[in-house]
Amino acid sequence: MKATIFKGKGSIVIEERPKPTIDQPTDAVVRVVLACVCGSDLWFYRGISDVPHGTVGHEFIGVIDSIGTDVTELSVGDFVIAPFSFSDGTCKNCEAGFQTACVHGGFFGQGGHDDGGQSEFVRVPLADGTLLKVPGTDFSDEMMASLLALADVMATGYHAAISAGVKTGDTVAVVGDGAVGLSGVLSAQMLGASRIVVLGSTTESRHALAREWGATDIITDRGANAVKQLLELTDGYGADAVLECVGTADSTTTAFAIARAGAIVGRVGVPHDAKVDAEGTFYRNIGMRGGPAPARHYQPMLLKAVLDGEINPGKVFDLTTDLDNIAEAYAAMDERRAIKALIKVSELAQAHSGSPTFQRQADEGTRS
Amino acid sequence: MKATIFKGKGSIVIEERPKPTIDQPTDAVVRVVLACVCGSDLWFYRGISDVPHGTVGHEFIGVIDSIGTDVTELSVGDFVIAPFSFSDGTCKNCEAGFQTACVHGGFFGQGGHDDGGQSEFVRVPLADGTLLKVPGTDFSDEMMASLLALADVMATGYHAAISAGVKTGDTVAVVGDGAVGLSGVLSAQMLGASRIVVLGSTTESRHALAREWGATDIITDRGANAVKQLLELTDGYGADAVLECVGTADSTTTAFAIARAGAIVGRVGVPHDAKVDAEGTFYRNIGMRGGPAPARHYQPMLLKAVLDGEINPGKVFDLTTDLDNIAEAYAAMDERRAIKALIKVSELAQAHSGSPTFQRQADEGTRS
Repeated sequence: MKATIFKGKGSIVIEERPKPTIDQPTDAVVRVVLACVCGSDLWFYRGISDVPHGTVGHEFIGVIDSIGTDVTELSVGDFVIAPFSFSDGTCKNCEAGFQTACVHGGFFGQGGHDDGGQSEFVRVPLADGTLLKVPGTDFSDEMMASLLALADVMATGYHAAISAGVKTGDTVAVVGDGAVGLSGVLSAQMLGASRIVVLGSTTESRHALAREWGATDIITDRGANAVKQLLELTDGYGADAVLECVGTADSTTTAFAIARAGAIVGRVGVPHDAKVDAEGTFYRNIGMRGGPAPARHYQPMLLKAVLDGEINPGKVFDLTTDLDNIAEAYAAMDERRAIKALIKVSELAQAHSGSPTFQRQADEGTRS
Repeated sequence: MKATIFKGKGSIVIEERPKPTIDQPTDAVVRVVLACVCGSDLWFYRGISDVPHGTVGHEFIGVIDSIGTDVTELSVGDFVIAPFSFSDGTCKNCEAGFQTACVHGGFFGQGGHDDGGQSEFVRVPLADGTLLKVPGTDFSDEMMASLLALADVMATGYHAAISAGVKTGDTVAVVGDGAVGLSGVLSAQMLGASRIVVLGSTTESRHALAREWGATDIITDRGANAVKQLLELTDGYGADAVLECVGTADSTTTAFAIARAGAIVGRVGVPHDAKVDAEGTFYRNIGMRGGPAPARHYQPMLLKAVLDGEINPGKVFDLTTDLDNIAEAYAAMDERRAIKALIKVSELAQAHSGSPTFQRQADEGTRS
């Protein structure tokens, strides 16, 4: 099968790898239908984070190709959403809603030899606890994109909003207007925020989607100027809830500086040299929550909202391509020519086949 | 009047100062009935924090001696509890329940020339927003001590528990067995914790009160050994909620290390060189909340619980003395001979008098 392999800074290639097979009786093998590139993939692509060379990609939806003998909740042929981490669903951390800390869990596509989501097939450990079955078989391209968004980006934006304690009537600040930040805007709107201020780039396409999803104000300055503007918008108090969707030192510092006394910064941007001022946050009673989103925890609710047509998180995808052209998807996101790239891997309705060869009808490099 | 003056490391003296008068129309002058020494007073007493020489003390209850023309909710002769900070009660931070961040507020007894609570009289700014009237005039010594505890220590312990999100059935870890930590134990019990693990000293009197207030386990080791023991008690998961009631680098590191995935560390120990590991907390979704307790926010509820006999937070006081002997109270707490010292300043029932001279019947240096 084809798999995306990280070969070092700036180098993404497609290579042939053996099709995965059932290793543990709790495994499933999933034929990937759609995958995508995550903003966090850019950290290793840019050589900033230290990821071993090998298979990558952690966001995918697909069809179950085979299952182990202990899998009871799923069947071959089921259409499923995978969260970006696998989890047993039964340990105390999973029961508490923090599946990314499952004591038997792990993350997909962290380099090395385990399967990544940017591949034709993925072995999914702990399938019953990990995969969420999607009812139905016929979905528009838009709906499919929105289902894919639940694998990570929308769940992560939602985790930021939940972690920050967004509630009805709040003034919410979202730091970052990448795909996660935009998903955070949509999540804040879902949770009843009355004012949503985005601190982001000058890219108009991001502003447009932010406004469509409820952003009322957009600040494009950085640092002290951004803080000043946010405080002016809030009579000097700061935001009732802050979503930190970047993870750099500057974005983290800004996030804490714009929180009103007692507010919580909901963090989902993977920290890179980010600092938390233990004393400064203390005296203003600023809180901090968040981390890797327990996507599996939020997916049932978010899936219903997508299927009911209440939200359309797939709009974050503004570049569509296929596995053969995934290197261009990384480059486009790296160069900020795209917010987020969707990778068409196989057709949902394709007949089940043990063969790694099948029909694909991807648009190659088409921008939506 | 007599006032406690901080003269530098290890030096606490009583000096005569002018009796305060109404300065602003929103002021009240309170005749102090009971005051106490705070664990946080030991930071400047020990020369660790940089507080200017001058009047100190921020915990007191007393009787209103005079009021400004704009004070409408209180009358001369009212028995009141003061929180350790003053606040208008009307700004957005106060309305959000964070009176310690009031935009017009401040703290009592921070050295310098403003009145401190360890004095015969205190000028209280923003009296309507700050002081809480206590109904009734006849209270036992035990009840009086419990009312005094609401000025800071019990409200602070409660803030730790609320900040940590303690809920029914939780396993709660309390780092610190000083007066605040013990109050945190009582608070965790009030909020329905089913297991309360104290990480503290080897002082038996502290253990006894902790157990009386619901502690089920006491760990007296520090650092990695304490973490190991806590994890063993919780099947390796960590505590559902952690109350950080010390503020040192070690206690803070321990607090984060013993929180289960997704748990919140409720911080009320004033940070001294404390560090927050931005990445380590992220990957386990560990949260952090807390800061100076908005005592005024919790006092109405806590007052009812005290008056109804449901809680007896005054039990943290194990040394009673008077203003003339307050230096010994500081020394006893510094040397860990006392958990917390109560200072008898005047009689509650004393006839109102503008004179700074009045009867006092304090036990001098008596240990309860």
